Amino acid sequence: MVKVLVLNGPNLNLLGVREPGVYGNDTLEDIEVMVAGRAADLGARVSFVQSNHEGVLIDTLHAAAGSFDAVVFNPGAYTHYAYALRDAVAAAQVPVVEVHLSNIAGREEFRRSSVIAPACVGQISGFGPRSYILGLEAAVGHLSESR
Amino acid sequence: MVKVLVLNGPNLNLLGVREPGVYGNDTLEDIEVMVAGRAADLGARVSFVQSNHEGVLIDTLHAAAGSFDAVVFNPGAYTHYAYALRDAVAAAQVPVVEVHLSNIAGREEFRRSSVIAPACVGQISGFGPRSYILGLEAAVGHLSESR
Amino acid sequence: MVKVLVLNGPNLNLLGVREPGVYGNDTLEDIEVMVAGRAADLGARVSFVQSNHEGVLIDTLHAAAGSFDAVVFNPGAYTHYAYALRDAVAAAQVPVVEVHLSNIAGREEFRRSSVIAPACVGQISGFGPRSYILGLEAAVGHLSESR
Amino acid sequence: MVKVLVLNGPNLNLLGVREPGVYGNDTLEDIEVMVAGRAADLGARVSFVQSNHEGVLIDTLHAAAGSFDAVVFNPGAYTHYAYALRDAVAAAQVPVVEVHLSNIAGREEFRRSSVIAPACVGQISGFGPRSYILGLEAAVGHLSESR
Amino acid sequence: MVKVLVLNGPNLNLLGVREPGVYGNDTLEDIEVMVAGRAADLGARVSFVQSNHEGVLIDTLHAAAGSFDAVVFNPGAYTHYAYALRDAVAAAQVPVVEVHLSNIAGREEFRRSSVIAPACVGQISGFGPRSYILGLEAAVGHLSESR
Amino acid sequence: MVKVLVLNGPNLNLLGVREPGVYGNDTLEDIEVMVAGRAADLGARVSFVQSNHEGVLIDTLHAAAGSFDAVVFNPGAYTHYAYALRDAVAAAQVPVVEVHLSNIAGREEFRRSSVIAPACVGQISGFGPRSYILGLEAAVGHLSESR
Amino acid sequence: MVKVLVLNGPNLNLLGVREPGVYGNDTLEDIEVMVAGRAADLGARVSFVQSNHEGVLIDTLHAAAGSFDAVVFNPGAYTHYAYALRDAVAAAQVPVVEVHLSNIAGREEFRRSSVIAPACVGQISGFGPRSYILGLEAAVGHLSESR
Amino acid sequence: MVKVLVLNGPNLNLLGVREPGVYGNDTLEDIEVMVAGRAADLGARVSFVQSNHEGVLIDTLHAAAGSFDAVVFNPGAYTHYAYALRDAVAAAQVPVVEVHLSNIAGREEFRRSSVIAPACVGQISGFGPRSYILGLEAAVGHLSESR
Amino acid sequence: MVKVLVLNGPNLNLLGVREPGVYGNDTLEDIEVMVAGRAADLGARVSFVQSNHEGVLIDTLHAAAGSFDAVVFNPGAYTHYAYALRDAVAAAQVPVVEVHLSNIAGREEFRRSSVIAPACVGQISGFGPRSYILGLEAAVGHLSESR
Amino acid sequence: MVKVLVLNGPNLNLLGVREPGVYGNDTLEDIEVMVAGRAADLGARVSFVQSNHEGVLIDTLHAAAGSFDAVVFNPGAYTHYAYALRDAVAAAQVPVVEVHLSNIAGREEFRRSSVIAPACVGQISGFGPRSYILGLEAAVGHLSESR
Amino acid sequence: MVKVLVLNGPNLNLLGVREPGVYGNDTLEDIEVMVAGRAADLGARVSFVQSNHEGVLIDTLHAAAGSFDAVVFNPGAYTHYAYALRDAVAAAQVPVVEVHLSNIAGREEFRRSSVIAPACVGQISGFGPRSYILGLEAAVGHLSESR
Amino acid sequence: MVKVLVLNGPNLNLLGVREPGVYGNDTLEDIEVMVAGRAADLGARVSFVQSNHEGVLIDTLHAAAGSFDAVVFNPGAYTHYAYALRDAVAAAQVPVVEVHLSNIAGREEFRRSSVIAPACVGQISGFGPRSYILGLEAAVGHLSESR
Repeated sequence: MVKVLVLNGPNLNLLGVREPGVYGNDTLEDIEVMVAGRAADLGARVSFVQSNHEGVLIDTLHAAAGSFDAVVFNPGAYTHYAYALRDAVAAAQVPVVEVHLSNIAGREEFRRSSVIAPACVGQISGFGPRSYILGLEAAVGHLSESR
Repeated sequence: MVKVLVLNGPNLNLLGVREPGVYGNDTLEDIEVMVAGRAADLGARVSFVQSNHEGVLIDTLHAAAGSFDAVVFNPGAYTHYAYALRDAVAAAQVPVVEVHLSNIAGREEFRRSSVIAPACVGQISGFGPRSYILGLEAAVGHLSESR
Repeated sequence: MVKVLVLNGPNLNLLGVREPGVYGNDTLEDIEVMVAGRAADLGARVSFVQSNHEGVLIDTLHAAAGSFDAVVFNPGAYTHYAYALRDAVAAAQVPVVEVHLSNIAGREEFRRSSVIAPACVGQISGFGPRSYILGLEAAVGHLSESR
Repeated sequence: MVKVLVLNGPNLNLLGVREPGVYGNDTLEDIEVMVAGRAADLGARVSFVQSNHEGVLIDTLHAAAGSFDAVVFNPGAYTHYAYALRDAVAAAQVPVVEVHLSNIAGREEFRRSSVIAPACVGQISGFGPRSYILGLEAAVGHLSESR
Repeated sequence: MVKVLVLNGPNLNLLGVREPGVYGNDTLEDIEVMVAGRAADLGARVSFVQSNHEGVLIDTLHAAAGSFDAVVFNPGAYTHYAYALRDAVAAAQVPVVEVHLSNIAGREEFRRSSVIAPACVGQISGFGPRSYILGLEAAVGHLSESR
Repeated sequence: MVKVLVLNGPNLNLLGVREPGVYGNDTLEDIEVMVAGRAADLGARVSFVQSNHEGVLIDTLHAAAGSFDAVVFNPGAYTHYAYALRDAVAAAQVPVVEVHLSNIAGREEFRRSSVIAPACVGQISGFGPRSYILGLEAAVGHLSESR
Repeated sequence: MVKVLVLNGPNLNLLGVREPGVYGNDTLEDIEVMVAGRAADLGARVSFVQSNHEGVLIDTLHAAAGSFDAVVFNPGAYTHYAYALRDAVAAAQVPVVEVHLSNIAGREEFRRSSVIAPACVGQISGFGPRSYILGLEAAVGHLSESR
Repeated sequence: MVKVLVLNGPNLNLLGVREPGVYGNDTLEDIEVMVAGRAADLGARVSFVQSNHEGVLIDTLHAAAGSFDAVVFNPGAYTHYAYALRDAVAAAQVPVVEVHLSNIAGREEFRRSSVIAPACVGQISGFGPRSYILGLEAAVGHLSESR
Repeated sequence: MVKVLVLNGPNLNLLGVREPGVYGNDTLEDIEVMVAGRAADLGARVSFVQSNHEGVLIDTLHAAAGSFDAVVFNPGAYTHYAYALRDAVAAAQVPVVEVHLSNIAGREEFRRSSVIAPACVGQISGFGPRSYILGLEAAVGHLSESR
Repeated sequence: MVKVLVLNGPNLNLLGVREPGVYGNDTLEDIEVMVAGRAADLGARVSFVQSNHEGVLIDTLHAAAGSFDAVVFNPGAYTHYAYALRDAVAAAQVPVVEVHLSNIAGREEFRRSSVIAPACVGQISGFGPRSYILGLEAAVGHLSESR
Repeated sequence: MVKVLVLNGPNLNLLGVREPGVYGNDTLEDIEVMVAGRAADLGARVSFVQSNHEGVLIDTLHAAAGSFDAVVFNPGAYTHYAYALRDAVAAAQVPVVEVHLSNIAGREEFRRSSVIAPACVGQISGFGPRSYILGLEAAVGHLSESR
Repeated sequence: MVKVLVLNGPNLNLLGVREPGVYGNDTLEDIEVMVAGRAADLGARVSFVQSNHEGVLIDTLHAAAGSFDAVVFNPGAYTHYAYALRDAVAAAQVPVVEVHLSNIAGREEFRRSSVIAPACVGQISGFGPRSYILGLEAAVGHLSESR
């Protein structure tokens, strides 16, 4: 059975509360319930980690290799400058799919590029909570193919 | 029944032949077959258009509004400079999802940004032919939600 | 009798429908009627061409020399990157006046400069449909002066 | 009766003398006579102010609101850096039309952008003295429309 | 008794009228009354000068040394380009505190940096009319400390 | 009674020891005593948190909403690149005032801009320990006004 | 017998007419005659295509593989921005030699770099019509060597 | 007899007082005495104008043509941004020599380039008060040569 | 006896596993053994700390002053953006030597500059594990000299 | 009889040894033999100079005027920064053709532009040793034409 | 008796021949005669060195200290990139005055800045051969003052 | 026995004399004595070359391959722009270690990057004369390892 870690970065614990006009009304827990439901359909097992600490996210990515087959990762604002996190993704030895709730290409200048994405399999952005579900499918599909 | 146009831009007619190390061995027809299969599962109808002409792509987007509910669009290298195409997406009056076979964030500098994406619902890149299937699901999901 | 070509570039066929908050409610046909009316006052004859294809716009500019005395040209989003169109204007052997409905100086960064304008007689932007009428007057005035 | 202020910035008092190859042989007074003639046709009343002082131009724009319905403004070289003048235009409470004798898009790099234009209704450049007449018509037309 | 000059640059004479959404409804006179009140509390005497002329602001700063112990200065849009004003502040021989009504860090790109601030004691921005009161306190505190 | 959190970022625990030529001889504790004294005058209650960890600062800002009415925040060098912290400020649901001991506009290039400030009410820099007291007053004043 | 396609991009149909000071008095037909003459010497067969449409140029490059051994290509102003054309060259499966009549390194800033050249075998510029003849020789030489 | 205007821009009235470490202890009057002495040697007549107002400097340059044969001009900090002043120099119809007391090439980044210099005959910087004397000699020599 | 802290930043705990083509096959422990051996030769005592958390690295640098005479520091990818870490190095009151396994000057653009190095004694990069040994020698030599 | 100097810049003496993957296996002598052969066909006489010294290359170009009719010049890495060499080419009074073995447009960023080329007749790059032969033909052709 | 070295860099040996429209008709020898004449007036002794080799210029500057009191230096195009020459000027232990025949501020972009000037006493440009005479006077004056 | 060339670039012959505050009081000869001593300890033989001529440095690097096993190279200010020297290092066929006396990361902007370093094994900077000794050890260690 495929095991996927859904990893969330800074400020995503505030979902549903923080700028709902941009990020929607779903809380992180709501999204986790949706993702778990879709995982069940796909015969995958999902775990969830959220942290506001770059160091914790790096540690978690390092530990992922032994326990998970893939990671679906929303790095929040670390997306735009955290090269240490990028190196952790590159070193993670499990495929990582980057996801974003909002369409980062259409927001402030500094949000338009990702220093993490070059180390990922691919990137999905702009579909709200569905970005996570698409990310899960992408990860599972990627695993099925590279076996 | 939901109708989706899958629109492909320049050079994508050469898929399977052109730089298979980057773009894979599937031809555009192979991908269309896969996408049509997934559309059937989702109860959607898909049509396919490919053109190397920016003007034809614009005309097609203009005409889409009356005939389709959404567009899944791989603009090829027009992604990086074709502002007229961006305006056509913005004016299209149907939601457009941008997809890419390769992970454009990890390629040459000029391929890392998209002038089209800000006018789209969202962007999916890096999953090979599966990018189209995820794009189709994203489009169908988006339509179901905004009704 | 002075003959003027009014040439419109990409997406301008959607006027009145596309983003009316920015571009107003007049259709391209409405504008053409206004322009034709003003041309009659000025004793000029006007023709109208619109295309979304950069190549067609270039071909049209090449052909203009024999048939027209001046061109009033709204290059749409090609304004910002289409150097081939710029060369066509420079080679056109008829004076070209660039017009824009919106005040491009006050819009997104990429819309603020024109690669076409240096090859034109001058530029008029921001007056809605009246930009075309002013452009027509500018063209006719320019012709009367350089004779 | 519509009242329009024609405001000229630095060095425009030298018209006809300064670089006639670029700016033509007409003096500022010649232009004012032409503009007054056209204003009479349009049933408008025009006044003229020229100053080389950024502060005087700002004061004049502040005072314009009570006395004029619109301003036709050639900011000269202040066009390219005078943000205080831009704020004065934005605060002026009368519509302002920016005009230039030469086609600034085709001159030195620093002359190609205007920090004033985003606060104006629109911009007209490149038609010599006729730029003022077109600017007057644009202003009068704009007023007739926004009533 | 400490004497402080409150100096205001271009367009600030229009406060209360100009873009109240950004700058509030208080007129410059309202602010001066508030500042004078706070000055009385602090045992300081305040004078007020406003000018739209960069040259007048420079002259005023030059003259300040003999007559005032400190200056609270809102340079308006001169903040962003007026190096001559910066030199006048550096040469003023009285400490200068830069204040802004709006939070300039959150506005248009060109408003985000100050060429004046490096020559000042410090900068206060974003608190509306209270920016002046804080600026007065900062100036008085600075003077008490450097004695 | 108004409750204000005074939050300090990286390296500020070393105040009084680190580069006293730039940051002065007061320790962070000295500053806290001054701020507490001024808070007593204003009828406000202050708490103090310092951390060198971006993640801890984010967590603290998230938790502030329930317990405090405002935050006075010196983000130290995180000021210049920590977009995750900026998002935490934007999401904090309490007003945040950014303060700096030194005049950051007059220091090394990289210290001259703040990625945090656009999400704050305003910014105060350059007044040494008094920057905190002015920040406290600004916060209290802001709260009194927005009630 | 070696078959070479000589492909010309936008505005080159106007040669001999357009800016003869820059591009010379030879028409495109004159050049084709010269090139055909030199091809005869080299025992090569040449065909000629010119189009102002980026899409047609891409289609032509796609079709070249089956019919030609090499392409001598003057992309005109598409040289400077047409990434879709670059991808078509990269995908063309025949070697492409880029040629220019004028010395593009010595002209306007935007003409100094080529986005097409990195996908070509090499580049020849500045020798007028002789650039085509040198390009033909380079192509024929390249073919003889890589066999 | 040759007549030369020595024109000084902003803050130069403070010479001898302002930052003597950079600008020396001589007052502007001291310098004028030295320059007048040297002028007498050269059989030239010199006049002196100083103003902190960009507009006054422009007016003075406009008026110079009838009354002077050359101008020695220290534009102070206007050197770095005042394009209106540059146009006034270009239009002045008398040769202008730019001088600076300090070696502007070795100071802050923004002081290293001059927007005025391209419109001058030449530039002299770094020799303290002697820069003016060298400027006077350069002006007189230039006049003697171009007769 | 000289005491030296060998401090390692993010992802260096994965050495020997992560991208061995770039970083080699030695684990961090292997390197520590080598360094300890060399320290014994030099009569120095070494301690080792590794953390993925910027905050922990800052705390460790703060604490180093009392316990160590020097620090040999590989900041990993924090090298390129962590200004807070730079300030911690500057405040550390012990000399810090920056080391890198790979030759960062020859890698991706973003890895080519160090924001930490200006606050260090010096920098050594490109010699694999030997970079640490050279760093230790540099630190010990620096201490012997500055006594 | 036409006399052509073939001039080679830095490191080209190592051809055949240095990075053969990029520059091929031919030594400079091999190339000179080929060029001499082709020169004989064309009825031209060729001489060869190679130097690693910018000064020697400049001296050689100065001396070329009296002795040669044209120069074929590969400036090696001086291509990208040696403005003094550019001036020598501009002053050389014989036409100079720039050649490169590799396709510099497709290499590292710093190799993509030439500061020498604007002073040359034209540029040929990417055809290996044949670049020299094409350069010789271009030079001879250019001479025959400009007579 | 004051001894001054007049040092000339690359291509200046061609004066009078090279681009007389820019550099005039005087040869370097003509200039040296003029300078020697003026030196005699000033009671100074002048020597002359010209080289096209950066290394020779550096060696000459190193040797100047023992033999000369000052250097008047025209670095030619090395002005714009030769940092090694700048260091030689900084190390020269005699004052150096930079001179240019043409007004470099008004020429091509790359000629507008000098990397040498920050290490010089000052800079004189634009006065043709007289730049050298002014440079000599500046050097002699500087020496008389700093004694 | 290992043979190492210690190569020094421009201005390093002035060590001990030139800016001792930056470069220390040791002469180049002093450093050579130290390095020779350390070489004796390591059982290596060292030779020394210094030149101010880029061409001589290139020639020396070319000749090094036959005679030396490694090079320790301080390129002085050529570090920052001499791409021809970089190519010589890349072509040298012996490993090269770049060393600097001062910590170039903490100096003027233009000194912060090295165009040479990407072609070297690694870089050592900031340790004064000890940088050479560390460079020697690095070179010797590198050789022992790659055998």
